[in-house]
Amino acid sequence: MQDKGILIVLSGFSGAGKGTLVKELLNQYQDEYALSVSMTTRAPRVGEQDGIHYFFTDRAHFEETAANGGLIEYAEYCGNYYGTPKAYVEEQLAAGRNVLLEIEIQGALQIKKLFPESLLLFVTPPTAVELERRLKNRGTETEEVIAKRLARAKEESEGMKAYDYIVINDDLAKCVEELHGIVQAARREPIRTKAFIEEIQKELKAFSKGE
Amino acid sequence: MQDKGILIVLSGFSGAGKGTLVKELLNQYQDEYALSVSMTTRAPRVGEQDGIHYFFTDRAHFEETAANGGLIEYAEYCGNYYGTPKAYVEEQLAAGRNVLLEIEIQGALQIKKLFPESLLLFVTPPTAVELERRLKNRGTETEEVIAKRLARAKEESEGMKAYDYIVINDDLAKCVEELHGIVQAARREPIRTKAFIEEIQKELKAFSKGE
Repeated sequence: MQDKGILIVLSGFSGAGKGTLVKELLNQYQDEYALSVSMTTRAPRVGEQDGIHYFFTDRAHFEETAANGGLIEYAEYCGNYYGTPKAYVEEQLAAGRNVLLEIEIQGALQIKKLFPESLLLFVTPPTAVELERRLKNRGTETEEVIAKRLARAKEESEGMKAYDYIVINDDLAKCVEELHGIVQAARREPIRTKAFIEEIQKELKAFSKGE
Repeated sequence: MQDKGILIVLSGFSGAGKGTLVKELLNQYQDEYALSVSMTTRAPRVGEQDGIHYFFTDRAHFEETAANGGLIEYAEYCGNYYGTPKAYVEEQLAAGRNVLLEIEIQGALQIKKLFPESLLLFVTPPTAVELERRLKNRGTETEEVIAKRLARAKEESEGMKAYDYIVINDDLAKCVEELHGIVQAARREPIRTKAFIEEIQKELKAFSKGE
């Protein structure tokens, strides 16, 4: 049975390993997952490619796209727009691929409201101490930036219960398996099994009418 | 990490294969699952053993057990009591084993209210036609009994959306795997990850206070 894909929203602490997790998932299950590419008005950074890292555009075009319903969510950060183009997501879902979206809680909740059958996953290291260790081990951040990230993680942790599943990223390989398992299981929740339930209810009704 | 077990309530159409599914699960994952044995006041049938198929008892003792809070749910069918003894369930859950309970929707919803972290699974064949075929293939039931079972299935199907997951039993071996996968995923829902979430929130708060 060729099911429609699931729109998967990934949030989580900076340092939780979302990026690596997404990369592994796309590597190991090429036919089953696709990554949503955001549209943004911010300037490309060195090495960033249009259509791969972002779709780069100007404010006028972004606003027009949003006004025409071409984005499933968008937000403005630090004077730049970021949004999720609808067409690509819908194409991939229709082709049976699960679409991965890395996004923060406000956007995640916005998407859940519009698409109740979307799947909200929160990625976290096993402990806060481990989160701190990972941030420090990057070796690229100042003490101040690390403190800011941890303060932000504290705020984000308040929203964890709004997610459908908590993905604990301890061992990467195990976590990829677990995440994939969660997606399989999520297909069997009634919210994503509606068509099946309605079909079997209809068939059983027909039986009892002696049809 | 030694997690507490999950109380798993299995419902589903007569003919969906719940019994076989439970047997396979207990066979393949002996250390992870335990089967709850019901207490009943009905007389043992030929071959039924006390403590294995049921705990057989009289009405006075059953009512006393219920009055003392010794049952997590009970109901009366056709003049006999059926109930789930609490002590065994709690022992198994504490030992980290998932406890399987085969029970109908009223009992299932009763349990969900009392134990919000319990897991309600609805087992169904892939189609109503397949359900009818399985009931007929047993070869032990009259046309009338089959019609009754299908009428009853129609009623039961109205409650499917109240379950946490719909387990589609097409191929037995695959279904056992899927069911086990659902149980693993369910451990990551916020309702069953409360202790973890609260711990990480506490740790992150302590960090931001500079502790």
